[in-house]
Amino acid sequence: MCREAWSALLIADEGWGHAVRAGEVAAPFPTVGLDTLAVEAARLLAGRNLPGLIVVDGVGRPLTVLPGTQVLRMAVPAYCQDDPALARVIDEAEADLLLSGLEGRTVGQCLPEPPRELPVVDPDATVLEIAALMARTRSPLVAVVDEAGTMRGAVTLDALLDRMLGS
Amino acid sequence: MCREAWSALLIADEGWGHAVRAGEVAAPFPTVGLDTLAVEAARLLAGRNLPGLIVVDGVGRPLTVLPGTQVLRMAVPAYCQDDPALARVIDEAEADLLLSGLEGRTVGQCLPEPPRELPVVDPDATVLEIAALMARTRSPLVAVVDEAGTMRGAVTLDALLDRMLGS
Repeated sequence: MCREAWSALLIADEGWGHAVRAGEVAAPFPTVGLDTLAVEAARLLAGRNLPGLIVVDGVGRPLTVLPGTQVLRMAVPAYCQDDPALARVIDEAEADLLLSGLEGRTVGQCLPEPPRELPVVDPDATVLEIAALMARTRSPLVAVVDEAGTMRGAVTLDALLDRMLGS
Repeated sequence: MCREAWSALLIADEGWGHAVRAGEVAAPFPTVGLDTLAVEAARLLAGRNLPGLIVVDGVGRPLTVLPGTQVLRMAVPAYCQDDPALARVIDEAEADLLLSGLEGRTVGQCLPEPPRELPVVDPDATVLEIAALMARTRSPLVAVVDEAGTMRGAVTLDALLDRMLGS
């Protein structure tokens, strides 16, 4: 990709007259809380074609950023995730029985282990920094937070690529 | 999420009268080759808001499935991926210099290490199996291949969630 992409970025930067920062690329993004029903969180993801979900605490500080695949993980029994053959042979009635223990659960109750690194940046982060963070954490979604840790918006992979490629 | 989501799936299944299989959920999906220019691959991803890219060989067999974040990885120098502080201090001119070595590179030249498990299924895979595979491999994109290994379509996370949630 690389030179043309970054050349486009440079040209864009020259127009701006400064390096592009997270605060300029960030856009509003819906959030969920620990007490949001997991099924509602999944509907939000699916209904708006989001790349993931941002889980915030009561004052809007990101607790975790879940890529879409990890939201999906909440619906899949752990032993099916690890055993493809088992996932194949379980028919729907059995799946329903197995999954009934999750009925009515909240996001907080379904969350996977916390990630080693939270994909969160401050508004001064550069485009290169956001790109590196997305690549490293495998998250197509990065939250932008202020000094108090409160979420001020998010940068999606699509938005970042559009900015990098000038499209 | 879980019971309501799977209940919706069950209802959908009852309508179909059988378990939903990959072959029914799969849709056409663009592919790239090892000799595709990396920047063209990135433009394809960005321009069509794809969740990732499928790299195929000369006869259409998937070689790797790259989530969007791993396409982005091709553009980020390795040492910036691992050192957030360095990514911050590099200004654009330096970044351009550092990245110039990648100029004109192909997808094949930029590919990361091959994944341990390729997110590929046969047309008989169940929805649960696809969901488990996406969660396990962290890939929002699964290729569907025939017996010869030739790609016949793909299932995206969005399409799978829509099917699961009946939206």
